Amino acid sequence: MPDILHRIEAKTSAAKAYDALTTRDGLARWWTTDTQGSFELGGVIEFRFGSRGFIHMKVIEREAGQRVLWQVVDGPSEWLGSRVRFDLEQDGEHTAVLFQHQGWKEASRFMHHCSTKWALFLMSLKSLLETGHGAAYPNDVHVTCKAD
Amino acid sequence: MPDILHRIEAKTSAAKAYDALTTRDGLARWWTTDTQGSFELGGVIEFRFGSRGFIHMKVIEREAGQRVLWQVVDGPSEWLGSRVRFDLEQDGEHTAVLFQHQGWKEASRFMHHCSTKWALFLMSLKSLLETGHGAAYPNDVHVTCKAD
Repeated sequence: MPDILHRIEAKTSAAKAYDALTTRDGLARWWTTDTQGSFELGGVIEFRFGSRGFIHMKVIEREAGQRVLWQVVDGPSEWLGSRVRFDLEQDGEHTAVLFQHQGWKEASRFMHHCSTKWALFLMSLKSLLETGHGAAYPNDVHVTCKAD
Repeated sequence: MPDILHRIEAKTSAAKAYDALTTRDGLARWWTTDTQGSFELGGVIEFRFGSRGFIHMKVIEREAGQRVLWQVVDGPSEWLGSRVRFDLEQDGEHTAVLFQHQGWKEASRFMHHCSTKWALFLMSLKSLLETGHGAAYPNDVHVTCKAD
């Protein structure tokens, strides 16, 4: 099954990157401002994107400063059952975020689109970690000619 | 074998997008300013990125307004033998670019990195097509903490 893969580095600690992946305030500042739910292990986080739709992620793993793994439990049909994983690797003043959105059934147009969007949201995360300002929905960067 | 997949849309025609993928002037304005070589079918295009390295692409297919396919014939070892494909789909005033970098041997860290970089270079292509200004090397957006 095809995966979406990305990697960014930010001038920050793994602890701060982990906070941005595991707290309401962090997630709301780089992915979507409309983030709610339960952020603990086994909880379900609800990410909403207005009329574009929503995604519910169950927290499958969270290891402080190292790894976060979510399973999609509701949302776009092509996302159902897929998993989103972040691995953190600190090296001195920098932290790398290795990203995988695993378990797509096929390399659809929508998967191509989501791959590009993930890259831009990860750049939003990098910006948040380095400057304090991300580009979360509804202020995200568009890759198509309509809202996406 | 894992692939890198992306999709962008730009407010432009497929003919203009095709020009940006098949001419020295076009490629130099969104990927790297140091673009040389032969751009015709069977030719080899040389893309250089200063001290970061270079990539030589053989033009395997080019179908006006529709498709461009390159094969990597020299460059980073992980790129050797892989293929880069652009499919164009015009819908009214908009053109979608479906992108695939096919034939990676493994989902390495470098592949994760290149996936994110491709997304940003495709956003550079989108910007070039819509505003006349891309972000080609050496003015490209960095995804790590050093030049990448």
